[in-house]
Amino acid sequence: MPLTQFYLTIMELFYTTDIDFPYLYLQHEEAIHCIKSLRKNIGDYIHITDGLGNHYYGIITQIERKKDIVTVHAQKQQNFNKSQNLGLCIAPTKNIDRMEWLIEKAVELGVSQIQWIITERSQRKTIPLERMQRIAISAMKQSLQYFLPNFYPIINFSSWLEQQKILQGVIGYCGEDIDKKPLNTLQITNKQNTYWICIGPEGDFTQNEVKQSLNTGLIPVSIGTHRLRTETAALTAISYFYL
Amino acid sequence: MPLTQFYLTIMELFYTTDIDFPYLYLQHEEAIHCIKSLRKNIGDYIHITDGLGNHYYGIITQIERKKDIVTVHAQKQQNFNKSQNLGLCIAPTKNIDRMEWLIEKAVELGVSQIQWIITERSQRKTIPLERMQRIAISAMKQSLQYFLPNFYPIINFSSWLEQQKILQGVIGYCGEDIDKKPLNTLQITNKQNTYWICIGPEGDFTQNEVKQSLNTGLIPVSIGTHRLRTETAALTAISYFYL
Repeated sequence: MPLTQFYLTIMELFYTTDIDFPYLYLQHEEAIHCIKSLRKNIGDYIHITDGLGNHYYGIITQIERKKDIVTVHAQKQQNFNKSQNLGLCIAPTKNIDRMEWLIEKAVELGVSQIQWIITERSQRKTIPLERMQRIAISAMKQSLQYFLPNFYPIINFSSWLEQQKILQGVIGYCGEDIDKKPLNTLQITNKQNTYWICIGPEGDFTQNEVKQSLNTGLIPVSIGTHRLRTETAALTAISYFYL
Repeated sequence: MPLTQFYLTIMELFYTTDIDFPYLYLQHEEAIHCIKSLRKNIGDYIHITDGLGNHYYGIITQIERKKDIVTVHAQKQQNFNKSQNLGLCIAPTKNIDRMEWLIEKAVELGVSQIQWIITERSQRKTIPLERMQRIAISAMKQSLQYFLPNFYPIINFSSWLEQQKILQGVIGYCGEDIDKKPLNTLQITNKQNTYWICIGPEGDFTQNEVKQSLNTGLIPVSIGTHRLRTETAALTAISYFYL
Protein backbone atom coordinates (compact mmCIF):
# COMPACT_ATOMS: atom_id res chain seq x y z
CA MET A 1 0.00 0.00 0.00
CA PRO A 2 1.47 3.45 -0.82
CA LEU A 3 2.37 5.43 2.26
CA THR A 4 -0.12 8.19 1.50
CA GLN A 5 -3.06 5.75 1.52
CA PHE A 6 -1.59 4.00 4.48
CA TYR A 7 -1.50 6.96 6.81
CA LEU A 8 -5.06 7.90 6.09
CA THR A 9 -6.05 4.69 7.82
CA ILE A 10 -3.72 5.12 10.83
CA MET A 11 -4.50 7.95 13.17
CA GLU A 12 -2.20 7.08 16.03
CA LEU A 13 1.06 5.20 16.23
CA PHE A 14 2.63 3.95 19.46
CA TYR A 15 6.26 3.15 20.14
CA THR A 16 7.91 0.42 22.15
CA THR A 17 11.07 -1.64 22.14
CA ASP A 18 9.76 -3.91 24.88
CA ILE A 19 8.71 -6.82 22.67
CA ASP A 20 8.32 -10.49 23.51
CA PHE A 21 6.57 -11.44 20.30
CA PRO A 22 3.61 -11.78 19.89
CA TYR A 23 3.33 -9.59 23.02
CA LEU A 24 4.31 -5.93 22.97
CA TYR A 25 4.34 -3.78 26.11
CA LEU A 26 3.71 -0.05 26.21
CA GLN A 27 5.24 1.53 29.27
CA HIS A 28 5.40 4.86 31.11
CA GLU A 29 4.44 7.81 28.88
CA GLU A 30 3.33 5.60 26.00
CA ALA A 31 1.00 3.63 28.26
CA ILE A 32 -0.36 6.80 29.90
CA HIS A 33 -0.95 8.38 26.51
CA CYS A 34 -2.74 5.24 25.35
CA ILE A 35 -5.05 4.66 28.32
CA LYS A 36 -5.48 8.16 29.75
CA SER A 37 -5.28 10.63 26.86
CA LEU A 38 -6.78 8.38 24.20
CA ARG A 39 -8.91 6.31 26.62
CA LYS A 40 -8.05 3.01 24.95
CA ASN A 41 -9.30 -0.08 26.69
CA ILE A 42 -8.94 -3.85 26.65
CA GLY A 43 -10.22 -5.09 23.28
CA ASP A 44 -9.18 -1.96 21.34
CA TYR A 45 -6.79 -2.32 18.41
CA ILE A 46 -3.70 -0.11 18.08
CA HIS A 47 -0.72 0.39 15.76
CA ILE A 48 2.78 0.14 17.17
CA THR A 49 6.32 0.56 15.84
CA ASP A 50 9.67 -0.43 17.30
CA GLY A 51 11.47 2.41 15.50
CA LEU A 52 13.44 -0.17 13.54
CA GLY A 53 11.15 -0.25 10.51
CA ASN A 54 8.56 -2.67 11.88
CA HIS A 55 4.86 -1.98 12.02
CA TYR A 56 2.70 -4.03 14.41
CA TYR A 57 -1.07 -4.08 14.75
CA GLY A 58 -2.76 -5.73 17.69
CA ILE A 59 -5.35 -5.91 20.41
CA ILE A 60 -4.95 -4.64 23.96
CA THR A 61 -5.20 -7.69 26.23
CA GLN A 62 -4.19 -6.26 29.59
CA ILE A 63 -3.90 -2.86 31.30
CA GLU A 64 -1.96 -2.48 34.56
CA ARG A 65 -2.94 1.01 35.63
CA LYS A 66 -0.74 1.18 38.70
CA LYS A 67 2.40 0.22 36.80
CA ASP A 68 1.39 2.01 33.59
CA ILE A 69 1.83 -1.06 31.40
CA VAL A 70 -0.35 -1.91 28.41
CA THR A 71 -0.03 -5.42 26.96
CA VAL A 72 -0.82 -5.84 23.28
CA HIS A 73 -1.15 -9.12 21.40
CA ALA A 74 0.07 -8.11 17.97
CA GLN A 75 0.88 -9.24 14.47
CA LYS A 76 3.68 -7.85 12.42
CA GLN A 77 2.11 -5.97 9.53
CA GLN A 78 5.04 -4.75 7.55
CA ASN A 79 8.77 -4.26 7.61
CA PHE A 80 9.84 -1.04 5.94
CA ASN A 81 13.14 -0.28 4.31
CA LYS A 82 14.61 3.17 4.44
CA SER A 83 14.48 4.69 0.97
CA GLN A 84 17.41 6.90 1.87
CA ASN A 85 19.88 7.25 4.65
CA LEU A 86 20.46 10.89 5.59
CA GLY A 87 22.76 11.77 8.47
CA LEU A 88 22.85 15.08 10.29
CA CYS A 89 26.18 15.98 11.91
CA ILE A 90 25.75 19.22 13.81
CA ALA A 91 27.39 21.46 16.37
CA PRO A 92 24.58 22.29 18.80
CA THR A 93 23.64 25.95 19.16
CA LYS A 94 23.99 27.79 22.45
CA ASN A 95 20.19 28.01 22.65
CA ILE A 96 19.00 24.43 23.04
CA ASP A 97 15.41 25.24 21.98
CA ARG A 98 16.71 25.71 18.45
CA MET A 99 18.12 22.19 18.49
CA GLU A 100 14.89 20.75 19.82
CA TRP A 101 12.99 22.33 16.94
CA LEU A 102 15.55 21.08 14.49
CA ILE A 103 15.43 17.50 15.74
CA GLU A 104 11.64 17.45 15.52
CA LYS A 105 11.77 18.70 11.93
CA ALA A 106 14.73 16.52 10.92
CA VAL A 107 12.91 13.41 12.16
CA GLU A 108 9.70 14.42 10.37
CA LEU A 109 11.74 14.62 7.18
CA GLY A 110 13.19 11.17 7.86
CA VAL A 111 16.80 11.73 8.95
CA SER A 112 18.37 8.38 9.99
CA GLN A 113 21.48 9.36 11.92
CA ILE A 114 22.17 12.26 14.25
CA GLN A 115 25.73 12.98 15.29
CA TRP A 116 26.42 15.84 17.71
CA ILE A 117 29.81 17.45 17.41
CA ILE A 118 32.11 19.83 19.24
CA THR A 119 34.03 22.08 16.89
CA GLU A 120 36.78 24.62 17.44
CA ARG A 121 34.26 27.45 17.68
CA SER A 122 31.52 25.55 19.53
CA GLN A 123 29.85 27.43 22.35
CA ARG A 124 27.91 24.40 23.58
CA LYS A 125 29.71 21.20 24.43
CA THR A 126 26.96 19.08 25.92
CA ILE A 127 23.61 17.84 24.70
CA PRO A 128 20.63 16.46 26.63
CA LEU A 129 20.54 13.21 24.64
CA GLU A 130 17.55 11.67 26.40
CA ARG A 131 15.42 14.73 25.88
CA MET A 132 16.39 14.79 22.21
CA GLN A 133 15.43 11.14 21.89
CA ARG A 134 12.03 11.81 23.42
CA ILE A 135 11.45 14.59 20.90
CA ALA A 136 12.52 12.25 18.11
CA ILE A 137 10.12 9.50 19.26
CA SER A 138 7.28 11.98 19.33
CA ALA A 139 8.11 13.31 15.86
CA MET A 140 8.44 9.80 14.44
CA LYS A 141 5.01 8.83 15.76
CA GLN A 142 3.40 12.08 14.70
CA SER A 143 4.69 11.77 11.14
CA LEU A 144 3.72 8.07 11.05
CA GLN A 145 7.17 6.73 10.41
CA TYR A 146 8.68 3.46 11.53
CA PHE A 147 12.29 4.48 11.96
CA LEU A 148 13.83 6.24 14.92
CA PRO A 149 17.15 7.84 14.03
CA ASN A 150 20.33 6.66 15.69
CA PHE A 151 21.64 9.23 18.14
CA TYR A 152 25.35 9.31 18.83
CA PRO A 153 26.89 11.00 21.86
CA ILE A 154 28.64 14.29 21.28
CA ILE A 155 32.22 13.97 20.01
CA ASN A 156 35.01 16.20 18.80
CA PHE A 157 34.45 16.85 15.08
CA SER A 158 38.05 16.17 14.22
CA SER A 159 38.02 12.82 16.07
CA TRP A 160 34.79 11.88 14.35
CA LEU A 161 36.31 12.56 10.94
CA GLU A 162 39.30 10.41 11.87
CA GLN A 163 37.05 7.55 12.97
CA GLN A 164 34.92 7.70 9.82
CA LYS A 165 37.82 7.76 7.38
CA ILE A 166 35.61 7.97 4.25
CA LEU A 167 32.40 9.94 4.13
CA GLN A 168 29.73 10.77 1.60
CA GLY A 169 28.07 14.12 2.08
CA VAL A 170 28.39 17.86 2.39
CA ILE A 171 29.79 20.40 4.82
CA GLY A 172 28.13 23.81 5.02
CA TYR A 173 30.66 26.62 5.09
CA CYS A 174 30.42 30.41 4.78
CA GLY A 175 34.10 31.23 4.19
CA GLU A 176 35.28 32.29 0.76
CA ASP A 177 38.76 30.76 1.05
CA ILE A 178 37.71 27.30 -0.15
CA ASP A 179 35.91 26.38 -3.38
CA LYS A 180 32.29 25.53 -2.65
CA LYS A 181 29.43 24.14 -4.66
CA PRO A 182 25.90 25.45 -4.45
CA LEU A 183 23.88 22.84 -2.61
CA ASN A 184 21.33 22.50 -5.39
CA THR A 185 23.89 21.22 -7.88
CA LEU A 186 24.38 18.03 -5.87
CA GLN A 187 22.65 14.66 -5.90
CA ILE A 188 22.98 11.57 -3.76
CA THR A 189 24.45 8.89 -6.02
CA ASN A 190 24.93 6.07 -3.52
CA LYS A 191 21.72 5.65 -1.51
CA GLN A 192 23.06 2.63 0.40
CA ASN A 193 25.52 4.55 2.53
CA THR A 194 24.70 7.43 4.84
CA TYR A 195 24.77 10.82 3.17
CA TRP A 196 26.02 13.26 5.81
CA ILE A 197 25.00 16.90 6.15
CA CYS A 198 27.56 18.61 8.39
CA ILE A 199 26.61 21.96 9.91
CA GLY A 200 28.93 24.04 12.07
CA PRO A 201 28.33 26.27 15.07
CA GLU A 202 27.17 29.91 15.05
CA GLY A 203 30.75 31.01 14.29
CA ASP A 204 31.13 28.52 11.40
CA PHE A 205 33.67 25.73 10.93
CA THR A 206 37.31 26.78 10.81
CA GLN A 207 39.36 26.53 7.64
CA ASN A 208 41.28 23.61 9.18
CA GLU A 209 38.10 21.72 9.95
CA VAL A 210 36.85 22.15 6.38
CA LYS A 211 40.20 21.03 5.00
CA GLN A 212 40.20 17.92 7.18
CA SER A 213 36.66 17.09 6.11
CA LEU A 214 37.64 17.49 2.46
CA ASN A 215 40.13 14.67 2.97
CA THR A 216 37.35 12.31 4.06
CA GLY A 217 35.34 13.07 0.91
CA LEU A 218 32.88 15.68 2.18
CA ILE A 219 31.98 18.43 -0.30
CA PRO A 220 32.02 22.05 0.94
CA VAL A 221 28.75 23.75 0.06
CA SER A 222 27.08 27.11 0.36
CA ILE A 223 23.50 26.85 1.55
CA GLY A 224 21.61 29.67 -0.13
CA THR A 225 22.62 33.31 -0.27
CA HIS A 226 21.59 34.75 3.10
CA ARG A 227 23.26 34.42 6.47
CA LEU A 228 21.22 31.53 7.84
CA ARG A 229 21.06 30.41 11.43
CA THR A 230 22.63 27.01 12.17
CA GLU A 231 19.30 25.22 12.40
CA THR A 232 17.87 26.93 9.31
CA ALA A 233 20.89 25.93 7.24
CA ALA A 234 20.56 22.35 8.50
CA LEU A 235 16.87 22.14 7.75
CA THR A 236 17.24 23.71 4.31
CA ALA A 237 19.86 21.12 3.39
CA ILE A 238 17.78 18.24 4.77
CA SER A 239 14.71 19.50 2.87
CA TYR A 240 16.72 19.64 -0.32
CA PHE A 241 17.84 16.01 -0.13
CA TYR A 242 14.45 14.90 1.18
CA LEU A 243 12.52 16.19 -1.83
CA MET B 1 29.78 43.44 -3.76
CA PRO B 2 28.46 39.87 -3.48
CA LEU B 3 26.27 39.32 -0.45
CA THR B 4 28.65 36.79 1.09
CA GLN B 5 31.49 39.31 1.23
CA PHE B 6 29.12 41.98 2.30
CA TYR B 7 27.88 40.31 5.43
CA LEU B 8 31.34 39.54 6.64
CA THR B 9 31.83 43.26 7.01
CA ILE B 10 28.47 43.93 8.72
CA MET B 11 27.98 42.47 12.14
CA GLU B 12 24.82 44.27 13.14
CA LEU B 13 21.94 45.72 11.21
CA PHE B 14 19.33 48.08 12.64
CA TYR B 15 15.83 48.76 11.41
CA THR B 16 13.79 51.90 11.21
CA THR B 17 11.10 53.44 9.05
CA ASP B 18 11.41 56.78 10.79
CA ILE B 19 13.50 58.55 8.17
CA ASP B 20 13.88 62.25 7.41
CA PHE B 21 16.83 61.89 5.11
CA PRO B 22 19.74 62.29 5.82
CA TYR B 23 18.52 61.73 9.37
CA LEU B 24 17.31 58.31 10.55
CA TYR B 25 15.84 57.73 13.99
CA LEU B 26 16.03 54.48 15.94
CA GLN B 27 13.26 54.23 18.49
CA HIS B 28 12.08 52.04 21.36
CA GLU B 29 13.58 48.51 21.22
CA GLU B 30 15.93 49.36 18.37
CA ALA B 31 17.34 52.32 20.27
CA ILE B 32 17.65 50.33 23.50
CA HIS B 33 19.39 47.49 21.67
CA CYS B 34 21.78 49.98 20.11
CA ILE B 35 22.76 52.01 23.15
CA LYS B 36 22.26 49.54 26.01
CA SER B 37 23.00 46.05 24.67
CA LEU B 38 25.63 47.07 22.13
CA ARG B 39 26.78 50.19 24.04
CA LYS B 40 26.98 52.32 20.94
CA ASN B 41 27.72 55.98 21.49
CA ILE B 42 27.76 59.30 19.69
CA GLY B 43 30.38 59.07 16.95
CA ASP B 44 29.89 55.35 16.30
CA TYR B 45 28.92 54.17 12.83
CA ILE B 46 26.05 51.76 12.30
CA HIS B 47 24.21 50.01 9.44
CA ILE B 48 20.47 50.51 9.08
CA THR B 49 17.74 49.22 6.79
CA ASP B 50 14.20 50.41 6.21
CA GLY B 51 13.01 46.91 5.27
CA LEU B 52 12.23 48.19 1.78
CA GLY B 53 15.52 47.18 0.22
CA ASN B 54 17.57 50.20 1.31
CA HIS B 55 20.84 50.00 3.19
CA TYR B 56 22.03 53.06 5.08
CA TYR B 57 25.33 53.64 6.83
CA GLY B 58 25.86 56.54 9.17
CA ILE B 59 27.17 58.12 12.34
CA ILE B 60 25.25 58.47 15.60
CA THR B 61 24.86 62.19 16.22
CA GLN B 62 22.46 62.29 19.15
CA ILE B 63 21.20 59.95 21.88
CA GLU B 64 18.10 60.81 23.89
CA ARG B 65 18.23 58.24 26.66
CA LYS B 66 14.98 59.21 28.33
CA LYS B 67 12.96 58.93 25.12
CA ASP B 68 15.01 56.06 23.72
CA ILE B 69 15.76 57.81 20.45
CA VAL B 70 19.02 57.50 18.54
CA THR B 71 19.62 59.97 15.72
CA VAL B 72 21.87 58.86 12.88
CA HIS B 73 23.23 61.01 10.08
CA ALA B 74 23.39 58.51 7.25
CA GLN B 75 24.15 57.95 3.62
CA LYS B 76 22.29 55.55 1.43
CA GLN B 77 24.70 52.78 0.55
CA GLN B 78 22.71 50.55 -1.69
CA ASN B 79 19.25 49.77 -2.93
CA PHE B 80 18.63 46.06 -3.31
CA ASN B 81 16.18 44.36 -5.61
CA LYS B 82 14.48 41.15 -4.62
CA SER B 83 15.84 38.32 -6.72
CA GLN B 84 12.61 36.43 -6.22
CA ASN B 85 9.22 37.08 -4.80
CA LEU B 86 7.95 34.17 -2.72
CA GLY B 87 4.63 34.40 -0.92
CA LEU B 88 3.50 32.21 1.94
CA CYS B 89 -0.25 31.78 2.30
CA ILE B 90 -0.94 29.74 5.41
CA ALA B 91 -3.68 28.67 7.79
CA PRO B 92 -2.16 29.24 11.25
CA THR B 93 -1.79 26.20 13.49
CA LYS B 94 -3.60 25.96 16.81
CA ASN B 95 -0.25 26.19 18.58
CA ILE B 96 1.03 29.68 17.84
CA ASP B 97 4.66 28.82 18.74
CA ARG B 98 4.81 26.78 15.57
CA MET B 99 3.86 29.82 13.51
CA GLU B 100 6.37 32.04 15.28
CA TRP B 101 9.10 29.57 14.47
CA LEU B 102 7.93 29.31 10.87
CA ILE B 103 7.88 33.07 10.37
CA GLU B 104 11.43 33.38 11.68
CA LYS B 105 12.61 30.71 9.26
CA ALA B 106 10.54 31.96 6.31
CA VAL B 107 11.98 35.45 6.71
CA GLU B 108 15.52 34.08 6.98
CA LEU B 109 14.94 32.35 3.66
CA GLY B 110 13.64 35.60 2.16
CA VAL B 111 9.88 35.21 1.83
CA SER B 112 8.35 38.51 0.61
CA GLN B 113 4.64 38.17 1.35
CA ILE B 114 2.81 36.52 4.20
CA GLN B 115 -0.92 35.97 3.93
CA TRP B 116 -2.77 34.37 6.83
CA ILE B 117 -5.91 32.50 5.93
CA ILE B 118 -8.96 30.92 7.53
CA THR B 119 -9.99 27.69 5.83
CA GLU B 120 -12.97 25.41 6.27
CA ARG B 121 -11.04 23.20 8.70
CA SER B 122 -9.10 25.96 10.48
CA GLN B 123 -8.87 25.66 14.24
CA ARG B 124 -7.31 29.10 14.70
CA LYS B 125 -8.98 32.15 13.27
CA THR B 126 -6.87 34.97 14.68
CA ILE B 127 -3.21 35.85 14.49
CA PRO B 128 -1.12 38.23 16.64
CA LEU B 129 0.05 40.28 13.68
CA GLU B 130 2.23 42.73 15.62
CA ARG B 131 4.09 39.96 17.38
CA MET B 132 4.67 38.21 14.05
CA GLN B 133 6.02 41.45 12.60
CA ARG B 134 8.45 41.85 15.49
CA ILE B 135 9.72 38.31 14.87
CA ALA B 136 10.08 39.10 11.18
CA ILE B 137 12.07 42.29 11.88
CA SER B 138 14.39 40.37 14.15
CA ALA B 139 14.90 37.60 11.58
CA MET B 140 15.49 40.10 8.79
CA LYS B 141 18.19 41.87 10.81
CA GLN B 142 19.77 38.64 11.99
CA SER B 143 20.05 37.28 8.46
CA LEU B 144 21.31 40.65 7.18
CA GLN B 145 18.56 41.26 4.71
CA TYR B 146 17.03 44.53 3.60
CA PHE B 147 13.48 43.45 2.96
CA LEU B 148 10.72 43.00 5.48
CA PRO B 149 7.89 40.85 4.12
CA ASN B 150 4.45 42.34 3.70
CA PHE B 151 2.03 40.95 6.26
CA TYR B 152 -1.62 40.81 5.36
CA PRO B 153 -4.41 40.45 7.94
CA ILE B 154 -6.09 37.09 8.17
CA ILE B 155 -8.80 36.49 5.58
CA ASN B 156 -11.08 33.70 4.46
CA PHE B 157 -9.16 31.57 1.95
CA SER B 158 -12.03 31.45 -0.47
CA SER B 159 -12.42 35.27 -0.41
CA TRP B 160 -8.69 35.68 -0.91
CA LEU B 161 -8.78 33.46 -4.00
CA GLU B 162 -11.68 35.50 -5.36
CA GLN B 163 -9.79 38.76 -4.80
CA GLN B 164 -6.61 37.47 -6.42
CA LYS B 165 -8.30 36.11 -9.55
CA ILE B 166 -5.06 34.76 -11.11
CA LEU B 167 -2.26 33.25 -9.07
CA GLN B 168 1.12 31.66 -9.70
CA GLY B 169 2.12 29.03 -7.21
CA VAL B 170 1.33 25.77 -5.47
CA ILE B 171 -1.15 24.42 -2.97
CA GLY B 172 -0.04 21.60 -0.66
CA TYR B 173 -2.65 18.87 -0.41
CA CYS B 174 -2.66 15.37 1.07
CA GLY B 175 -5.86 14.01 -0.52
CA GLU B 176 -5.66 11.47 -3.32
CA ASP B 177 -8.80 12.62 -5.11
CA ILE B 178 -7.05 15.33 -7.17
CA ASP B 179 -4.03 14.92 -9.46
CA LYS B 180 -0.94 16.33 -7.80
CA LYS B 181 2.62 16.98 -8.87
CA PRO B 182 5.64 16.24 -6.73
CA LEU B 183 6.99 19.59 -5.55
CA ASN B 184 10.47 18.95 -6.94
CA THR B 185 9.23 18.77 -10.53
CA LEU B 186 8.28 22.46 -10.48
CA GLN B 187 10.17 25.63 -11.27
CA ILE B 188 9.32 29.29 -11.00
CA THR B 189 9.13 30.59 -14.55
CA ASN B 190 7.97 34.15 -13.94
CA LYS B 191 10.12 35.70 -11.22
CA GLN B 192 8.42 39.10 -11.51
CA ASN B 193 5.16 38.05 -9.93
CA THR B 194 4.71 36.54 -6.50
CA TYR B 195 4.99 32.77 -6.43
CA TRP B 196 2.56 31.60 -3.74
CA ILE B 197 3.01 28.58 -1.49
CA CYS B 198 -0.39 27.77 0.04
CA ILE B 199 -0.44 25.52 3.09
CA GLY B 200 -3.60 24.35 4.80
CA PRO B 201 -4.46 23.70 8.44
CA GLU B 202 -3.74 20.53 10.45
CA GLY B 203 -6.81 18.88 8.88
CA ASP B 204 -5.77 19.84 5.32
CA PHE B 205 -7.63 21.90 2.73
CA THR B 206 -11.00 20.56 1.64
CA GLN B 207 -11.57 19.22 -1.85
CA ASN B 208 -13.66 22.32 -2.61
CA GLU B 209 -10.89 24.66 -1.55
CA VAL B 210 -8.38 22.85 -3.74
CA LYS B 211 -10.78 22.93 -6.70
CA GLN B 212 -11.35 26.66 -6.26
CA SER B 213 -7.60 27.28 -6.08
CA LEU B 214 -7.09 25.26 -9.28
CA ASN B 215 -9.30 27.76 -11.07
CA THR B 216 -6.97 30.62 -10.09
CA GLY B 217 -3.96 28.77 -11.52
CA LEU B 218 -2.46 27.22 -8.37
CA ILE B 219 -0.91 23.76 -8.83
CA PRO B 220 -1.79 21.05 -6.28
CA VAL B 221 1.39 19.45 -4.96
CA SER B 222 2.47 16.73 -2.59
CA ILE B 223 5.29 17.82 -0.31
CA GLY B 224 7.40 14.73 0.30
CA THR B 225 6.20 11.30 1.36
CA HIS B 226 5.67 11.57 5.13
CA ARG B 227 2.83 13.16 7.04
CA LEU B 228 4.41 16.55 7.71
CA ARG B 229 3.22 19.12 10.20
CA THR B 230 1.83 22.32 8.70
CA GLU B 231 4.94 24.36 9.46
CA THR B 232 7.32 21.64 8.26
CA ALA B 233 5.48 21.34 4.95
CA ALA B 234 5.61 25.13 4.56
CA LEU B 235 9.32 25.35 5.31
CA THR B 236 10.20 22.42 3.06
CA ALA B 237 8.42 24.10 0.15
CA ILE B 238 10.04 27.47 0.86
CA SER B 239 13.49 25.81 1.09
CA TYR B 240 12.90 24.12 -2.23
CA PHE B 241 12.16 27.36 -4.09
CA TYR B 242 14.84 29.24 -2.16
CA LEU B 243 17.67 26.97 -3.27
